[in-house]
Amino acid sequence: MSAGRGVTFARGFTAGATAAGVKHGDAGRLDVALLVAERPCVAAAAFTRNQVIAAPCVVTRRHVARGPLRAVVVNSGNANACTGEQGEHDALAMAAAAAQAVGARTEEVAVASTGVIGIPLPLDRIVRSLPRIRPTVEGWDPFSRAIMTTDTRPKVAEREVWLRGAPVRIGGIAKGAGMIHPDMATLLAFVTTDARLDTAGAQRALRSAVDASFNAISVDGDTSTNDTALLLASGASGIAVDGDAWEPFVDALTDVCGELARAIVADGEGATKVFEVRVQGAATAADALAAARTITTSNLVKTAIHGADPNWGRILAAAGRSGARLDQRRASVRIGGVDVFSRGSPSTWDANEVRAVFERATIEIDVDLGVGDATAKAWGCDLSAEYVHINADYTT
Amino acid sequence: MSAGRGVTFARGFTAGATAAGVKHGDAGRLDVALLVAERPCVAAAAFTRNQVIAAPCVVTRRHVARGPLRAVVVNSGNANACTGEQGEHDALAMAAAAAQAVGARTEEVAVASTGVIGIPLPLDRIVRSLPRIRPTVEGWDPFSRAIMTTDTRPKVAEREVWLRGAPVRIGGIAKGAGMIHPDMATLLAFVTTDARLDTAGAQRALRSAVDASFNAISVDGDTSTNDTALLLASGASGIAVDGDAWEPFVDALTDVCGELARAIVADGEGATKVFEVRVQGAATAADALAAARTITTSNLVKTAIHGADPNWGRILAAAGRSGARLDQRRASVRIGGVDVFSRGSPSTWDANEVRAVFERATIEIDVDLGVGDATAKAWGCDLSAEYVHINADYTT
Repeated sequence: MSAGRGVTFARGFTAGATAAGVKHGDAGRLDVALLVAERPCVAAAAFTRNQVIAAPCVVTRRHVARGPLRAVVVNSGNANACTGEQGEHDALAMAAAAAQAVGARTEEVAVASTGVIGIPLPLDRIVRSLPRIRPTVEGWDPFSRAIMTTDTRPKVAEREVWLRGAPVRIGGIAKGAGMIHPDMATLLAFVTTDARLDTAGAQRALRSAVDASFNAISVDGDTSTNDTALLLASGASGIAVDGDAWEPFVDALTDVCGELARAIVADGEGATKVFEVRVQGAATAADALAAARTITTSNLVKTAIHGADPNWGRILAAAGRSGARLDQRRASVRIGGVDVFSRGSPSTWDANEVRAVFERATIEIDVDLGVGDATAKAWGCDLSAEYVHINADYTT
Repeated sequence: MSAGRGVTFARGFTAGATAAGVKHGDAGRLDVALLVAERPCVAAAAFTRNQVIAAPCVVTRRHVARGPLRAVVVNSGNANACTGEQGEHDALAMAAAAAQAVGARTEEVAVASTGVIGIPLPLDRIVRSLPRIRPTVEGWDPFSRAIMTTDTRPKVAEREVWLRGAPVRIGGIAKGAGMIHPDMATLLAFVTTDARLDTAGAQRALRSAVDASFNAISVDGDTSTNDTALLLASGASGIAVDGDAWEPFVDALTDVCGELARAIVADGEGATKVFEVRVQGAATAADALAAARTITTSNLVKTAIHGADPNWGRILAAAGRSGARLDQRRASVRIGGVDVFSRGSPSTWDANEVRAVFERATIEIDVDLGVGDATAKAWGCDLSAEYVHINADYTT
């Protein structure tokens, strides 16, 4: 995790946050945040694929489709989801209040919310709190903390990439610890850049980065109603992202999103271990991804990893039910580089070597399906008793 | 749960079990079991849909396809899965030894195994133990305990149904507590009847019963490599299952399988609560089933139920990611008959009433997707810290 500035690393952005009392029972905690762009920014967004979609996503999708954005307003503590017509009205009112605070038009503001579902948004408190926020370049830090819910730490990442001989910056801040699963993993992610992008390019770059990062992680297999990833491009670097500049830009954007995504998995509710699943030998890329994702979401794999158990049988069984084609007589599994199942038969391994694998920061699991050439990666975390405690005690 | 005789309730069957020492570190525990039919029986089978399929399933599928069965041999403690060519050899040798013990041909014996994956079967111990088993009508009890792994109690069910003025009996014994999920839930189930069925009818009746029972339950979303459901029909009642007799027979068979399936969920690893999800208002039956199953497997729903939290937001979000079409402005959720979300908006409810709901033996969850007329049911259990302990400590 970088120490960096996240959303204010790129030129042209400021941020800030305040405590509005949305998080009930915790009046002093930061829970409303603003990200402000000096000038209108080209924007792109990716949202949850859950059919139950929260009001702020509906409003933000509309605003992004309309044109450039000037600001993003976020609250934690209340998701404004499953709140009916009132919810959409509240999300729009929140955008309007933020627009007034920063001197923009309502449709130039994106809205994001995260927290409990089905409780009306405490709109008044949010509206009253917004004028108190003084966005600055240093404001990335309170911003990163204000958007947290069950997260135990902020997620911040940035990259500088040289394009056409000049530095272009990309930075992001994300939150998410539960309800995290592929299909736009359950999270909020805000990424800014000073590169110059057109709308179609911004959307294409974000989609590519999201698919290889946020859509390849899983904490608990549950997709949220509020997932939002936003990209704002200020153009302040003067560097256009096209031609030769496209690939290095998208790579850097993917790196930023990937670092944020892995930070989310590492901070998964109750997580004590992160694992990376690398599938090869699949018939198709879709098969590879299906197998990788199914392994990262298997409760039996997750508990085995929690117990530091090289249980390749559960890994193979998860691949076997994923729908991906596999040949069990040619399949292989390695855990942390140690052969545990090789071309259809269990291997013998050194118990000490395997023990050491489970002490690594990230446990690498390689699975060869034995039928083709396609590959995919996915990231998951272990399932602990603490996960159960967190989610059994969480109040609706 | 009935007190009954399970697999020896129908006329023409005996059973027994012994302790062969397959379950390591627990030499005194029953772990090899025999079910014997007086005469060759028409047989039908359903197996795991996992592509990683264990050797005993491969052998049993072949034997069922060949013709009538005389016996079933089962061991617990070792799944004989992912054991390569040796595994298939061992499964066949186990069938041959059982055939010799009961005076049948090898291809008249079905084999089933359950336990750890990837360890060669201790074939010698199993073979040596078989002559010690003396199958009797009372042997259903040791049989029911010998096939258990992490199960805490035997699962036994039976029904008598009058067809054409005469009693026909159906009884079954099952095991399963983890790796339980639709697509032939992870389990072994042995059902016998004294009805007279032809092979096609037996297969059709079993498929119908399995789809509405074992394929509609989930403990942890993980499908096993060894799932097997077997139906043996002795014909000893003299009553043929055709014409008017078909439907009452299949209903009774479904009842037996359903009772066994719900007993498996209730005994799910670490389970303290069972819930039944009834989806209505779906566009198609497949949509209804997808929504019901996704809700029963959601870790967030399962932990909410563990915490006695009427968290309809998680229920709705699980339906929303299931792929089933839903209209969130017309959707409704009831928990134990209490309206918690009604036609797109949260309801207000009596906290005492909801608390009482969570004290019931089975918690009923009704979800209306608000788009059509199709319905489906599924059963699940809560996710507890105990589940994590059981599965993190289980040894490969």
